[in-house]
Amino acid sequence: MDEMLTGEAYPLVSRASRPEGSRIELAEGITVGGREIVLIAGPCAVEGEAQLLATARHVAAAGAHLLRGGAFKPRSSPYAFQGLGGEGLALLERARAETGLPIVSEVLDETSVEQVAEVADVIQIGSRNMGNGALLRRVARTGKPVLLKRGMAATVEELLLAAEYVLVEGNSNVLLCERGIRGFDGATRNVFDLAAIPLLKELSHLPVVADPSHGTGRRDLVPAMARAAVAAGADALLIEVHPDPEAALSDGAQSLTFDAFTALVGELHAVAEAVGRALAPAGRAVP
Amino acid sequence: MDEMLTGEAYPLVSRASRPEGSRIELAEGITVGGREIVLIAGPCAVEGEAQLLATARHVAAAGAHLLRGGAFKPRSSPYAFQGLGGEGLALLERARAETGLPIVSEVLDETSVEQVAEVADVIQIGSRNMGNGALLRRVARTGKPVLLKRGMAATVEELLLAAEYVLVEGNSNVLLCERGIRGFDGATRNVFDLAAIPLLKELSHLPVVADPSHGTGRRDLVPAMARAAVAAGADALLIEVHPDPEAALSDGAQSLTFDAFTALVGELHAVAEAVGRALAPAGRAVP
Amino acid sequence: MDEMLTGEAYPLVSRASRPEGSRIELAEGITVGGREIVLIAGPCAVEGEAQLLATARHVAAAGAHLLRGGAFKPRSSPYAFQGLGGEGLALLERARAETGLPIVSEVLDETSVEQVAEVADVIQIGSRNMGNGALLRRVARTGKPVLLKRGMAATVEELLLAAEYVLVEGNSNVLLCERGIRGFDGATRNVFDLAAIPLLKELSHLPVVADPSHGTGRRDLVPAMARAAVAAGADALLIEVHPDPEAALSDGAQSLTFDAFTALVGELHAVAEAVGRALAPAGRAVP
Amino acid sequence: MDEMLTGEAYPLVSRASRPEGSRIELAEGITVGGREIVLIAGPCAVEGEAQLLATARHVAAAGAHLLRGGAFKPRSSPYAFQGLGGEGLALLERARAETGLPIVSEVLDETSVEQVAEVADVIQIGSRNMGNGALLRRVARTGKPVLLKRGMAATVEELLLAAEYVLVEGNSNVLLCERGIRGFDGATRNVFDLAAIPLLKELSHLPVVADPSHGTGRRDLVPAMARAAVAAGADALLIEVHPDPEAALSDGAQSLTFDAFTALVGELHAVAEAVGRALAPAGRAVP
Repeated sequence: MDEMLTGEAYPLVSRASRPEGSRIELAEGITVGGREIVLIAGPCAVEGEAQLLATARHVAAAGAHLLRGGAFKPRSSPYAFQGLGGEGLALLERARAETGLPIVSEVLDETSVEQVAEVADVIQIGSRNMGNGALLRRVARTGKPVLLKRGMAATVEELLLAAEYVLVEGNSNVLLCERGIRGFDGATRNVFDLAAIPLLKELSHLPVVADPSHGTGRRDLVPAMARAAVAAGADALLIEVHPDPEAALSDGAQSLTFDAFTALVGELHAVAEAVGRALAPAGRAVP
Repeated sequence: MDEMLTGEAYPLVSRASRPEGSRIELAEGITVGGREIVLIAGPCAVEGEAQLLATARHVAAAGAHLLRGGAFKPRSSPYAFQGLGGEGLALLERARAETGLPIVSEVLDETSVEQVAEVADVIQIGSRNMGNGALLRRVARTGKPVLLKRGMAATVEELLLAAEYVLVEGNSNVLLCERGIRGFDGATRNVFDLAAIPLLKELSHLPVVADPSHGTGRRDLVPAMARAAVAAGADALLIEVHPDPEAALSDGAQSLTFDAFTALVGELHAVAEAVGRALAPAGRAVP
Repeated sequence: MDEMLTGEAYPLVSRASRPEGSRIELAEGITVGGREIVLIAGPCAVEGEAQLLATARHVAAAGAHLLRGGAFKPRSSPYAFQGLGGEGLALLERARAETGLPIVSEVLDETSVEQVAEVADVIQIGSRNMGNGALLRRVARTGKPVLLKRGMAATVEELLLAAEYVLVEGNSNVLLCERGIRGFDGATRNVFDLAAIPLLKELSHLPVVADPSHGTGRRDLVPAMARAAVAAGADALLIEVHPDPEAALSDGAQSLTFDAFTALVGELHAVAEAVGRALAPAGRAVP
Repeated sequence: MDEMLTGEAYPLVSRASRPEGSRIELAEGITVGGREIVLIAGPCAVEGEAQLLATARHVAAAGAHLLRGGAFKPRSSPYAFQGLGGEGLALLERARAETGLPIVSEVLDETSVEQVAEVADVIQIGSRNMGNGALLRRVARTGKPVLLKRGMAATVEELLLAAEYVLVEGNSNVLLCERGIRGFDGATRNVFDLAAIPLLKELSHLPVVADPSHGTGRRDLVPAMARAAVAAGADALLIEVHPDPEAALSDGAQSLTFDAFTALVGELHAVAEAVGRALAPAGRAVP
């Protein structure tokens, strides 16, 4: 099914087509791809009103610029918690209304694209769906910014080709996300391939997001990898935060506590400055 | 997104739920999962009438029991040949009418499930979609047998959980397919994980299909790996055959010529017998 | 440290240099690389007289042609059992005297090459040392046949280049051994890359050995993978056998019981015949 | 050959045995493991006097604290440049005499340990030899600091166990080095597993070195990954520098030019400061 790829395999996504790089407006006042680094934080899954609102308030106060939260959750097992669905989306809307944080949420299948697009400011396509051309095209047509996660066994080139599926539909608002690839060492959930960050920046004009939560699967390693991602040139970070990680319905092991997130933001300010950048100012989004 | 899995993670798929193993009728007179081994052969993609019919006639004469052929092709690039779609399905119908071979064809997205199900006797879910729960459920509800391919970075347990998505919808006609996983050695397209065959047989009652064409990506290695798969206990083989592999629109490098396929069938007879089995009799399917 | 490799990267090892293939005499009356398939069996480590002699007698009676047993064991931990050393070699000598089975044993470092070479009929270089050029050269100079195992992350080409280190010293009695590579699925110890068998046969004139014990790490999968290896074209098999696997000091999980080994030899006869070969006659080696 | 590992698998290397962390004196005035970050730079291989001295002078002036350079080179092919051997060591001595930079050089086999130890201030054990217990023990007994590189397919735990081989001999001056692991994406030479840095720091008291040159295999990615490694908590960096990378006898593609190295040191100052550390002062080593 593969084909020999030439340098011209992804003409729209290629850096050559836009040497100065793309700046993408994710919501009013929040642009990614320029000097300022954007923080996307929140729970893996929306579990309920109290959990979501507490997290949204906390990450907003700590300096996050967007709220992440899954209403539809891809799970290996049909018996695992699959997300709150429409109810989850409604809670995300409420969280946005209260905190002003725009929403990033994942869409799992074609039939719920419209439903997610009504609420989400940025639509996430998860690792499992990176190679799902039909979904990529459908999401592209919503016109919304797309956060596209690298597949667990996808090469950098395959990620760029997946992005090309979106751009070819006329939507060039794509964020490429490195989130770890499968490896042989069970000590971490995935191998966080940080070198993909500067490589993607070199090959493409699209902004690059780093997800150290999935990249490592371990809360204790997230801060170091978040700092490393900024030092490596990431334009945005995607960080899982939960009020009580041990009780989380999914991904508890990799979610930061509120305090840990606050501490991390402080560290990121310093690293961003060291590489000639800055965290985007917080509080720009008005409820 | 993962969860700790216990031995009871996939109750419907588990060997414990059906110790004697499942026999699945793929079409009238063609059952997989018993003593007889089933051969599924044909081109990667349906490219046109002449290509498809010539291949169908040849593999039928050589002893294949089902015809494979993709009308919808998942491709890494949006610019690569995506298959003939509905026209391809019509050609598959014609090939069946002429040769009597039942059809295995892949479905890529939820919106075309009905369209594929109208023609295909067995619906294939490809590697890229193994973790696509929405598609798994939708395909399950057609009631048709499902050939489920292991994802490129999926563990054996994740493949079993994906199958559980189908069984939980009331469709227990699932064939598990090993087709190679991603590895570090570019000498082969994938690492063909043959040990997954006896492992799947041990953990589950479902029949196991081996795909040495994708498993190796190299025509020169397909016969040895097809023989090995039978020796390892595979219940069926999925083999790509093309009248002119060098001119194929996809997967030419791994497609067998007609002569090579004929020679292979002869070898497989002997290996099947050596392990106490037999190839299913050819010519059972009547046009 | 790598270099671009051309087709002429391993001139001595290359099939082109000896299109008819190499036959290597491992001991009087036992040749590998021809039509007959050779069985090498025995415990992972020599643990003591009773264990070794019982195993040697059993595998000899069951049809093995050589006895394997480690006197020096490479271990990840300095606190794990490192083998009986010289005492282990003496026991191997005794086992040979009693059963007539020639000995395959591993050498771990340059300083013990002579010591191992005095006893072993075939010197094994383990996975960890495949890239150890100094050891390869030193072992080559003993003139003994070398069983060279593929490194856990070595490509097929790197294995061939490692063999070239031996041949360049004037010793062309090398057996290439596929024993599994590192993978992401903890269900098996390694990924047994069976496609490497026909690939090595195509690229090189050297005989190929398959080690399904390390390849899978699971006793329950060894018979199926041993059969598959023969079907794929292996010239020899390396099988771990132990009188009481649960009590083994190393590799118990992957060692066959005596009964399982006997049963396996019967199965291998049939598969060898199915692919136009035969197991070498047993009992040729005279004590 | 593996064994079930408990938390007490590496008692000497474990962080629990020295919670405050180890500071190791690499040469007079140069200590690693404290607040200050150490830079080790130089060519992959010593190729000749002009190449080595020019590089040594440049990296010394730019702020490096030790000079790296291989006199004995491990190569996949027996026909590739294997290093200048004793002559290379003599040149390293001269470079030290002239610039004051202490020397890091690799030892490949037991028989040359003494020879390398006479010249090198720090002895490197390369990836290929991480699991070579005999070499680890022999090098340990020199009493010299050991820079121990992670094997290409080694888990973090296996690296710690390899270090335990050195400590158990009474030498606790070990630096653990992350240098990339094998992966499926040919776009980079290895997958640089940066999460191993904080993980190793957490599990062990030993200092951690990052090698972004081998970690990526691409000069264009080295600066970003060097910055990332410092942000992730590395105690030292190992960077390949060559006066004319395109003409290098090995590893040219991943070697920095002089100018690129100078620029990188400037960037690292800023990142080190951002994470509460500093580059060790240059010029401490007096010729």
